[in-house]
Amino acid sequence: MLMDLFDRLFPINRSITGDGVRQSLRILGEIVPIKQTEYATGTECFDWTVPKEWNVRGAYVKDSQGRTLIDFKENNLHLMGYSVPFRGYVSREELMEHLLTRPDLPNAIPYMMSYYKESWGFCVEHNRLPEFTDEWYEVFIDSDLQDGHMTLGEGFIQGSSKQEILLSTYICHPSMAINELSGPLVQTMIYHYLLHRKNLKYSYRFLYLPETIGSLLYLSQYGEQLKQRVVAGYVVTCVGHGESFTYKRSKRADTLADKAAIHVLKQSGKPYTVVDWNPFGSDERQYCSEGFKLPMGSLMRTMYGQYPEYHTSLDNRSLISEEVLLETIQMYIDLIETLEANETYECTHIHGEPKLDKRGLYPYLGGTRTKEEQRQISFITNLIAFSDGHNDLIDIAEKLGEMGKELNKPAQLLEQHGLLRSLNVERYNTQYDLVN
Amino acid sequence: MLMDLFDRLFPINRSITGDGVRQSLRILGEIVPIKQTEYATGTECFDWTVPKEWNVRGAYVKDSQGRTLIDFKENNLHLMGYSVPFRGYVSREELMEHLLTRPDLPNAIPYMMSYYKESWGFCVEHNRLPEFTDEWYEVFIDSDLQDGHMTLGEGFIQGSSKQEILLSTYICHPSMAINELSGPLVQTMIYHYLLHRKNLKYSYRFLYLPETIGSLLYLSQYGEQLKQRVVAGYVVTCVGHGESFTYKRSKRADTLADKAAIHVLKQSGKPYTVVDWNPFGSDERQYCSEGFKLPMGSLMRTMYGQYPEYHTSLDNRSLISEEVLLETIQMYIDLIETLEANETYECTHIHGEPKLDKRGLYPYLGGTRTKEEQRQISFITNLIAFSDGHNDLIDIAEKLGEMGKELNKPAQLLEQHGLLRSLNVERYNTQYDLVN
Amino acid sequence: MLMDLFDRLFPINRSITGDGVRQSLRILGEIVPIKQTEYATGTECFDWTVPKEWNVRGAYVKDSQGRTLIDFKENNLHLMGYSVPFRGYVSREELMEHLLTRPDLPNAIPYMMSYYKESWGFCVEHNRLPEFTDEWYEVFIDSDLQDGHMTLGEGFIQGSSKQEILLSTYICHPSMAINELSGPLVQTMIYHYLLHRKNLKYSYRFLYLPETIGSLLYLSQYGEQLKQRVVAGYVVTCVGHGESFTYKRSKRADTLADKAAIHVLKQSGKPYTVVDWNPFGSDERQYCSEGFKLPMGSLMRTMYGQYPEYHTSLDNRSLISEEVLLETIQMYIDLIETLEANETYECTHIHGEPKLDKRGLYPYLGGTRTKEEQRQISFITNLIAFSDGHNDLIDIAEKLGEMGKELNKPAQLLEQHGLLRSLNVERYNTQYDLVN
Repeated sequence: MLMDLFDRLFPINRSITGDGVRQSLRILGEIVPIKQTEYATGTECFDWTVPKEWNVRGAYVKDSQGRTLIDFKENNLHLMGYSVPFRGYVSREELMEHLLTRPDLPNAIPYMMSYYKESWGFCVEHNRLPEFTDEWYEVFIDSDLQDGHMTLGEGFIQGSSKQEILLSTYICHPSMAINELSGPLVQTMIYHYLLHRKNLKYSYRFLYLPETIGSLLYLSQYGEQLKQRVVAGYVVTCVGHGESFTYKRSKRADTLADKAAIHVLKQSGKPYTVVDWNPFGSDERQYCSEGFKLPMGSLMRTMYGQYPEYHTSLDNRSLISEEVLLETIQMYIDLIETLEANETYECTHIHGEPKLDKRGLYPYLGGTRTKEEQRQISFITNLIAFSDGHNDLIDIAEKLGEMGKELNKPAQLLEQHGLLRSLNVERYNTQYDLVN
Repeated sequence: MLMDLFDRLFPINRSITGDGVRQSLRILGEIVPIKQTEYATGTECFDWTVPKEWNVRGAYVKDSQGRTLIDFKENNLHLMGYSVPFRGYVSREELMEHLLTRPDLPNAIPYMMSYYKESWGFCVEHNRLPEFTDEWYEVFIDSDLQDGHMTLGEGFIQGSSKQEILLSTYICHPSMAINELSGPLVQTMIYHYLLHRKNLKYSYRFLYLPETIGSLLYLSQYGEQLKQRVVAGYVVTCVGHGESFTYKRSKRADTLADKAAIHVLKQSGKPYTVVDWNPFGSDERQYCSEGFKLPMGSLMRTMYGQYPEYHTSLDNRSLISEEVLLETIQMYIDLIETLEANETYECTHIHGEPKLDKRGLYPYLGGTRTKEEQRQISFITNLIAFSDGHNDLIDIAEKLGEMGKELNKPAQLLEQHGLLRSLNVERYNTQYDLVN
Repeated sequence: MLMDLFDRLFPINRSITGDGVRQSLRILGEIVPIKQTEYATGTECFDWTVPKEWNVRGAYVKDSQGRTLIDFKENNLHLMGYSVPFRGYVSREELMEHLLTRPDLPNAIPYMMSYYKESWGFCVEHNRLPEFTDEWYEVFIDSDLQDGHMTLGEGFIQGSSKQEILLSTYICHPSMAINELSGPLVQTMIYHYLLHRKNLKYSYRFLYLPETIGSLLYLSQYGEQLKQRVVAGYVVTCVGHGESFTYKRSKRADTLADKAAIHVLKQSGKPYTVVDWNPFGSDERQYCSEGFKLPMGSLMRTMYGQYPEYHTSLDNRSLISEEVLLETIQMYIDLIETLEANETYECTHIHGEPKLDKRGLYPYLGGTRTKEEQRQISFITNLIAFSDGHNDLIDIAEKLGEMGKELNKPAQLLEQHGLLRSLNVERYNTQYDLVN
């Protein structure tokens, strides 16, 4: 199913505005509810302004014999993003000023765009330049660039708490696989999983936005609300290939988002690297800007800029793998379940150890315990010892070399026996009106 | 002498209550004064209750021909601790339900007990099970389990300060060498050393308790007093064998107890490892519980659970060595002397260096100094430079790669010359009534 | 030029007082303005007192045949520093009590002195002792030791701020190259560079003092002023030989002086080691004493005590190299330029990223950037992202693996565009009267 979805989404000509975005959100909306909101051209968002809407019907370059040399229909990367409408005959010299290539990757069509300066261009494999020997060419770009809207996609699941986990991905790149289709696909599958999970503690928000301008636009509308509610969040991008995981920290570097993600990666036993936040990358640049500093990192596989096919036509179906997508989805689910399980408890019995056997929590004869019984005893004993109102389940799990979510059941058992008291409880049980 | 004492104590049938404890304390009491205090069955201590007192006169299992297969007289480990009185004939099947073995250590009699659930059992070498071929057996357990007392042993040496160093060991295990006889033996030798040392700064308390219930009982009586007075303490256990030392930190992890112990181990040049506090082990589980959080660690050799003979009849005289016991005693004495020497000083001359030669503290011609003179100059110069009211002698000794106690004399010399002023002095010179 | 200067200064008989100091300062004063200040014998400075002034016209030892065995004219190290006047005939035995040698370095004349206890002595190569076979000797020391003055040298450059950078070197050692002539030479060249540099932010102070007593004397006069004004300082010593640099931290260990020096060494790519402050060494002993605790470290090459020729006649021209002196001068200049460039900025645009292209700060098409353009974009982007009022330029440069001074221009560009605001500005633009 995942790759069928991929195949339907891949050919669509997405950009930061236009029908490609709407169509892509509609297709994902068959799996999970996604609300589309339109913001008019000219809408201001901090230092930025929503640009004109761009749509393309077709574009080509023909030589003097009328043979088509470049055709948008073959690959929408051929047309530089936000190319203005144009029809005319141009000399070879003039055409060359509008042809964009990557000499370092001669077989790749580069991905280029000019959102904020009106221009046109065609992107082509560098090793095809020798084909352009004619003196003049016909250039046709049947595009619209006019006042319209920018489309943001959003999903929301209400948990028992107003506090929320935020996932954000972008939906503005034309036909490329890792960057970006892997992001919307993985985010949608996580969203689908959570839709069918009962008793969520946190609320969940899923954003599908054009990169940079989209997150700025959303922040300009809801940024203050996010500052109050988001306890952890992740930018979902570059999640479709690569042997190992990459976690990019939030700018604050030590948030719950960071602690939980690194904990889950470490306990998973899979290879991973952690990189510090930096001002290059995706929407964590905006979410973590000083004015918001949201607790948001990014859990990726091989990240942007770290694979040679990045931002070219070589970033295609041959790179991506369903197996890797599924492994990443599972890692995100483990992460979310760890966040759901995580609590800070205080042990109510502080003078020496409580007597566990009289509560049925401890077998009488040491020699007869199974390994799993011993593991459970270790969980219970460590929860009692380290639940001091400061350590949370993740901290205690780290001491034991276990996933935090494994401590959930023993902690609840101890809570039932009155030996642990959760310090987070007040935060979750306030009923409140839906925010959207 | 140490091994003679060992040989007298080894065969005694100790448990958490009973005459074996009293007799053992009496023998150790020949070396140092130990006060025995009795607490009646039913006395509550936090979540726990003092159980009935247990004493054994004899116990055996005979086969149908009257041949003795298991006899308490041969090794008191054969009888499960706290076995109720029993006399009768049992089938092979029933007997097997009461035979406890360690298949992983087929030549060992396991050490088992059932303090808080009434039952009986015999512990036997696993590879002797094939001997039990008869259809029925005579079982005889001549024990008492009835209202009585739990016995705590305590020693105290008054120093010039109310502040105290606490050593605690346990005295509830039957015939085993490392765990536990090494603990009471080493603690008693340290106690003996301090009894004959003059001018102690700190007071010293020595506890000999049944493990867990004993420390809980003591804490329920004197815990608040200990919280006010104990500046450092150690659980003395597993100190009789192993190439290297093990220091288990206090739960607070950075107390004076931890700093001094790790300092002394490091400067000793001997191999050692440091482990974090965890809720398995001995009475540091109780002393470090959240309600008390005493600054208590545990200075051991090879620790409980880390050697295969642990909690079996193989933990016997062949494991223990007088040489190792003596080396451990010396390490504890170095540790205590470091605590005694440790002070936080403030240099009174803060504008540049004081002129040492005019006080006779510095030789005139550099070339003529012996190595020891240079070492003393280094001590003096560093004490002046780093005594800022925050660094204590241990901190300064760490910078120099020396034992803290080596700085004691030069510090006192500088104090006599008015160049250092101790910030701890007020704490020690208050006279007070004896606490026991 | 540097080595010519060396050759003029090397033969002068410097000590903590006397005409050698004045003459040396006069020669250096040909390059940069150095004010000489005289303090009379008996002047008190904290625990110390300015001693009598010492000058020497000549000194020798002759054997009974009148042959000169030791002559001050050949090497002023032959006469122990502060030797009192003496003329007379002495037995071999008595002479031996006044002959100082280094058995471990038999070819070296040791450097010895006795400032604070009146005495006389000759220093000689240990392997020349067999020459002293006569029964008696003529000893002649034509020195003055009488009330006079101690001479301190000082230079000052006023910047736009009262805050100052302090460099200090010593000028009290007779004919030795690394310790000490390298120090005054390097400091003078840095002073010369700064004299001709425009628009200094900080003021600069250069001290040329007899070691220990000289810095104590200066601190007793101006210590409180230095505490208020010095933001970073370095003792310039042992800067003439050795493959790698040594940085000795200030006693506070984490001052701007330390951060900047270690940053510049690290980014230079040259080998270096960092050592903690300790109370042995040079005038950082006084500057960092508790009463002043100035932010002063010492940037050296191979440091005092770490080379065998230290404090002997073997520390001579053959050890020193002009190339190494120049490399050290350049490192100090890089360090000072980094301090000059360093500012703490706050980004004025905190909600998302500012739009750089509309300010002309960002090229439109990604593919066309040169490497240097990309570097400048990285500087600008990181300055915006990390200028949070806490990170300074050095901190941000560390993240980028660049020298802090490289960020100076892009930071000023962003300041001009109103995107950064310096938090240090107020400190610098107060006009004030010259202090000396």
